[in-house]
Amino acid sequence: MKIIVDGFGGDNAPLAVLEGCRMAADEYGVEIILTGDEKKLRACAEEHRISLAGMELVHTPSVIPVDAHPQDIMTEYADSSMAEAMRLLSAGKGDAVVCAGSTGAMVVSASLMVRRIKGVKRATLAPIIPSESGCYILMDAGANVECRPEMLLQFGVMGSAYMEKIMGIKQPRVAVVNIGAEETKGRELELGAHALFRQSGILNFTGNIEPRYIPRGDADVVITDGFTGNVVLKLTEGLGKMIGNALKDIFMDGFAGKIAGLLVLKKVKAFKKKMDYTEYGGAPLLGISKPVIKAHGSSNGNAFKNAIRQARDFAERDVIGQITDSLAKIKEQNTQTKAE
Amino acid sequence: MKIIVDGFGGDNAPLAVLEGCRMAADEYGVEIILTGDEKKLRACAEEHRISLAGMELVHTPSVIPVDAHPQDIMTEYADSSMAEAMRLLSAGKGDAVVCAGSTGAMVVSASLMVRRIKGVKRATLAPIIPSESGCYILMDAGANVECRPEMLLQFGVMGSAYMEKIMGIKQPRVAVVNIGAEETKGRELELGAHALFRQSGILNFTGNIEPRYIPRGDADVVITDGFTGNVVLKLTEGLGKMIGNALKDIFMDGFAGKIAGLLVLKKVKAFKKKMDYTEYGGAPLLGISKPVIKAHGSSNGNAFKNAIRQARDFAERDVIGQITDSLAKIKEQNTQTKAE
Repeated sequence: MKIIVDGFGGDNAPLAVLEGCRMAADEYGVEIILTGDEKKLRACAEEHRISLAGMELVHTPSVIPVDAHPQDIMTEYADSSMAEAMRLLSAGKGDAVVCAGSTGAMVVSASLMVRRIKGVKRATLAPIIPSESGCYILMDAGANVECRPEMLLQFGVMGSAYMEKIMGIKQPRVAVVNIGAEETKGRELELGAHALFRQSGILNFTGNIEPRYIPRGDADVVITDGFTGNVVLKLTEGLGKMIGNALKDIFMDGFAGKIAGLLVLKKVKAFKKKMDYTEYGGAPLLGISKPVIKAHGSSNGNAFKNAIRQARDFAERDVIGQITDSLAKIKEQNTQTKAE
Repeated sequence: MKIIVDGFGGDNAPLAVLEGCRMAADEYGVEIILTGDEKKLRACAEEHRISLAGMELVHTPSVIPVDAHPQDIMTEYADSSMAEAMRLLSAGKGDAVVCAGSTGAMVVSASLMVRRIKGVKRATLAPIIPSESGCYILMDAGANVECRPEMLLQFGVMGSAYMEKIMGIKQPRVAVVNIGAEETKGRELELGAHALFRQSGILNFTGNIEPRYIPRGDADVVITDGFTGNVVLKLTEGLGKMIGNALKDIFMDGFAGKIAGLLVLKKVKAFKKKMDYTEYGGAPLLGISKPVIKAHGSSNGNAFKNAIRQARDFAERDVIGQITDSLAKIKEQNTQTKAE
């Protein structure tokens, strides 16, 4: 198993990337191909005494900035560490890509260089978000602002395969975000998607999910358009931050607070860990014909290690094969329905 | 000042309503008109030794169930306590309505019986939600699933007037929910609304707000369509519940946890109170030509008291006058622009 890692993606590159690659190589026995400025990578490794054993370095002269226009990855930044990682994946030099760079540029370069799964209308970033009872995958989380019902069905197929194969959830519960539980609620998008999910019959579709029950974990695969999904993702992050500040205020201020903090330290830490989405690694880019994992921009070494583990599982467990099969089944159903 | 209160709205009616009315009459010196089954109201008051001094009872035989179709308020439940409250308001028998019943039925009965402000396209429920730095008003929170840019501008005008007059915020910051801060982000709705807000120039429009910064309190008036707004409202509630459960788990379980809980009890209580939106009273129904307050369905006596105070302020401080003036200004601008 060979994982291609963009050495210069994320806020803490290249040190955090090197640390993560080292840990992953040691713990999981995976081989690593690292893209980026070779001199800088070697200097950083030497300075921090990180062995490069088991890692192949592929030199690239540039790095795409996070605020660059995503399309620039194909022109101005065609020689960047991210573009090279995708090129290597496309050429079969490795089994999966891990990158903490710009999401937009990843979607563009993966779609154009690695290509989408046949029949997939749009590739999308699908973050795994912690819930009270575990975690759920959110699709679309922002890549496609406007969506059609058929796209939502494809998201359901892809998210379901991922949660089953990677997170080990049998028959993942797939639900569409809506403002009411009833089938008649929502916009044309939700009404249309509802009908398509019911028709297809190949997923464990549980109907609508009201946003109130998303954090409780009432669905494993949470389906919506990219605008609403981005609102869900960002609001969850914002409220998490707000709560974190409140806890800090409760436990860090004053003598009694600090004593109380010590008394419940373990539980607070466990809660924080449970809510820390870097524990799950990164977010898969679903719809691409080979495994691509987007690591969080602020990833530390441990988060990169987890993302590499996730990329290995993604490649090993043939998620893409299952997605391809399911899409073929849906296509067959549609052809039959039309023929009837 | 005379406040009309639906005696049978909400989960805890009529007892909580009677308690709230009693407290409000005593503390604020307001007169109360209470609608509902007179016998039941008197029996409940007697049983709980609640004096009805300063309260006028208006008998109505029925109550509209929360799950009834909203339109039924005009036919099957035309003799309900809610319908009568709106009728009394429309007839000028009181200055404002407080009701904890079905939101849908309130929007319908208020729109048809009390009528909308001239020029207002849609009335909407606008809840006040606590943030890290205070609170914000959310519009639309679910009444209008699909919205046009002009509706969003009207929401901004109405929410701004309310936050200024009732919450005492000078030049409230008005922002449109969007998936990015840049003007070019979003759907046609956001792009269109952005242009209209910039043009109008009568509000303190601060541009887009990313959902991440809503809980931090970066805007006082948070504008979006009813689908997205409902997602924001319900997800905030759901995450609040999740955090509440986590805090309970930390402090209620085990000896150390309980001791810790005692040590920080005051702070946890202060935090809970800050996050408790019933403290703000209820949500105004904005766009109606007279003040209507929707109290939370689970309101207790204290929440009803707060809602009555809010209704009094709503009537006293001429929010509706300011909304009417602002809408007239916008109309004038539009006429001028067309004439040029």
